[in-house]
Amino acid sequence: MGSHRGALKQALREAVRDGRLAPGTRLPPYRALAVDLGLARNTVADAYAELVAEGWLTARQGSGTRVAERIMPTRTTRIPEKAPRRPADPAHNLAQGQPDASSFPRTAWLASARRALTAAPNEAFGPGDPQGRVELREALAGYLARVRGVRTSPDQIVVCSGVAHALRLLFGEHVLRGPLAVEAYGLPFHRGLLEAAGVRTTPLGIDRDGTRVEDLASAAPRPRAVLLTPAHQFPTGGPLLPSRRTAAVDWARAHGGLVIEDDYDGEFRYDREPVGAVQGLDPEHVVYLGSVSKSLSPAVRLGWMVLPERLVDPVLAAKGLREGWTGVPDQLTLADLIESGSYDKHIRRTRHRYRERRNRLVAGLAEQAPHLEVTGIAAGLHAVLRLPPGTEAATVEAANREGIALDGLAAFRHPAASTPHTDGLVIGYAAPPDHAYTAALEALLRVLPPPSEP
Amino acid sequence: MGSHRGALKQALREAVRDGRLAPGTRLPPYRALAVDLGLARNTVADAYAELVAEGWLTARQGSGTRVAERIMPTRTTRIPEKAPRRPADPAHNLAQGQPDASSFPRTAWLASARRALTAAPNEAFGPGDPQGRVELREALAGYLARVRGVRTSPDQIVVCSGVAHALRLLFGEHVLRGPLAVEAYGLPFHRGLLEAAGVRTTPLGIDRDGTRVEDLASAAPRPRAVLLTPAHQFPTGGPLLPSRRTAAVDWARAHGGLVIEDDYDGEFRYDREPVGAVQGLDPEHVVYLGSVSKSLSPAVRLGWMVLPERLVDPVLAAKGLREGWTGVPDQLTLADLIESGSYDKHIRRTRHRYRERRNRLVAGLAEQAPHLEVTGIAAGLHAVLRLPPGTEAATVEAANREGIALDGLAAFRHPAASTPHTDGLVIGYAAPPDHAYTAALEALLRVLPPPSEP
Repeated sequence: MGSHRGALKQALREAVRDGRLAPGTRLPPYRALAVDLGLARNTVADAYAELVAEGWLTARQGSGTRVAERIMPTRTTRIPEKAPRRPADPAHNLAQGQPDASSFPRTAWLASARRALTAAPNEAFGPGDPQGRVELREALAGYLARVRGVRTSPDQIVVCSGVAHALRLLFGEHVLRGPLAVEAYGLPFHRGLLEAAGVRTTPLGIDRDGTRVEDLASAAPRPRAVLLTPAHQFPTGGPLLPSRRTAAVDWARAHGGLVIEDDYDGEFRYDREPVGAVQGLDPEHVVYLGSVSKSLSPAVRLGWMVLPERLVDPVLAAKGLREGWTGVPDQLTLADLIESGSYDKHIRRTRHRYRERRNRLVAGLAEQAPHLEVTGIAAGLHAVLRLPPGTEAATVEAANREGIALDGLAAFRHPAASTPHTDGLVIGYAAPPDHAYTAALEALLRVLPPPSEP
Repeated sequence: MGSHRGALKQALREAVRDGRLAPGTRLPPYRALAVDLGLARNTVADAYAELVAEGWLTARQGSGTRVAERIMPTRTTRIPEKAPRRPADPAHNLAQGQPDASSFPRTAWLASARRALTAAPNEAFGPGDPQGRVELREALAGYLARVRGVRTSPDQIVVCSGVAHALRLLFGEHVLRGPLAVEAYGLPFHRGLLEAAGVRTTPLGIDRDGTRVEDLASAAPRPRAVLLTPAHQFPTGGPLLPSRRTAAVDWARAHGGLVIEDDYDGEFRYDREPVGAVQGLDPEHVVYLGSVSKSLSPAVRLGWMVLPERLVDPVLAAKGLREGWTGVPDQLTLADLIESGSYDKHIRRTRHRYRERRNRLVAGLAEQAPHLEVTGIAAGLHAVLRLPPGTEAATVEAANREGIALDGLAAFRHPAASTPHTDGLVIGYAAPPDHAYTAALEALLRVLPPPSEP
């Protein structure tokens, strides 16, 4: 990184932190700022992208780059005399992507830790193998085959700290290169870290059959890979239809491309047959990514990459000679959790709980906001509530004022997406503990826009 | 990173992996390679630096950049038909920097895990605070004050995955900038990652009173910070004398500089009073770094930074809005291990064991190689055996042929160091399990150079 970029990032962060740049403030276009500061355009563009990746800024089509709203827990402004530094907890947490922290299976986790650490060979406590413990890779190979239809061997799995780490290993170290096709809606954190690694991302449209993978062949610049969430498009919520799953793999085969499958919530399906992983269609043309962030807890930093044979060595080379990130006790514990059946049991229990919550959300909306359509409810930890055109920003603002943490769909939109934006809320129903869910739901129903006048 | 650099790194790694570039092979000077390949000099220099950081290459003064000897465990060459991928274990492991993996306190760790995870509030299993769990920061503040004389509050501690992660946060994200003064001998892994982050490092000479910090004021380019191992210079082994500890802090005060104190093995002292941390002299001018890699195991990825007040927010900003690396179960477990006294007990037990081993090493050398001087033995997990001039490379080679994993002093020398090189072996005596230590010692004694003819 150039030091100008570092200095600019630092200055912008400080301005956000101490309130000189208020949430929602629009930043000057990077070209204009580059001229003002006498910096290269790329320097400013990269600084913006990295700050988006870190959550300080958001980038939305048509509204430019802005200071992020403080929906996600952020650090409070510094107060002299060493105020305790704690994230401000929202009154009602309907943020997407978070499982219920109170559901973490402490007893099962501890039982697995005891069995695994007692049985482990001494070398487990030496310098770690960057590929990950073989016990975990074997457990994952079996589990992913059984539950997600993934076809692999432990040799083709590399353990990492989560999907973001996986993307950093793939693109930050030039194992893969862009341009990368992505979905028109997706996680800004991922897009930002890809862009910070110099990867140009091109959005693919999304229709009711899922992401328009048939546009891959004609996309410009020609993508070398495509990042997809086939089981449950994030965040709009539909599965990728079988014909498009096949089309994605066909494109990869025909063009020497690669499908990167982010299976972020693949275990949580409610109303229909599980949708298997695209990876099972062609293991040599798909990189499959997963983690325990949704299934167990984001506090356990464990994820995995299932790689085509030819990518295993490059990814390991990128990771370095020794494991620097993922702790062995957690790896061994998760391996036992899976092999003992406790992981499946936990998934079944939480799936049941989240389905109940989803049903309550859908019922509440049907009763009190029947004019609004709710979609993406067959799977996952969140639903999408479609809003009348032009009402999203005001609704998100009203929700925030009520102490509800949630995001509008616009927060996930690729700045270069060409399909028209649909207003909507992304409602995470998994995060609150059971006792707080009713109040969160009631608060949400209070802030929704009323039916429009006839 | 530019894609040329990535491609060059990839090509070099592949050539090392498949044996086209044999261990010890000298690479062309980066300027020459840049001309040959039509690349910018910086591109090649950066690729070299990053491959040194990853352990593929070594850079030594006077012998250029070479393919690393396979002393450290490396992956075996790929064999078709999915050969198992395992690091080749040396017959005798006398590599520096590794504690005895068989000494990991499994029972105490599990007891702490049970207490900590049972007592933890639910929010512990939600998205993590990048500063680290307050339970761990409180335990560390008390422990480091008591054992190392560190003066801090939990507010000024940031948890990370180890010292390498700490250096990446400080320099890779431009919280601090170079030029950085370093010790003439040090860990090539750290130097490589600093250089990959664009930090120019300048070596300070080392004499029998430790690192020559009095040269800081006249060093060119003028350093903004200095990275030191004051308790036990790595790897040469002496402590930094009190007058020089004061001089380092005085330099920082006078020049707006910063001392970065890598306290990698501060707990392991044998024959003399503990040397407290330099941080205690001036907490606002010293960044103190530590980890459990030596005290517990490199398989537990936990480290800490104790920061001057003004650096806390920048480091947290660099880390991002959510903890992506360090698992909460391990953090809570370590906090309990410290608070319950189990950590102290473990340190006492392993210190006793390592002292015995050091005594046996010194006695064996006194008996069978009385012509060679052994230094740096008052502390730590390794000793330095001085060798007759010109014999180091051949002795390391002979040791490797005997299946002994160890390094010569030259492997740690800064390429730009100006003080004359002293030949020597860095002998890690902590790594082998007890039952293997005698054989390792005997193998070592067999390969040492005989007394020169009178």
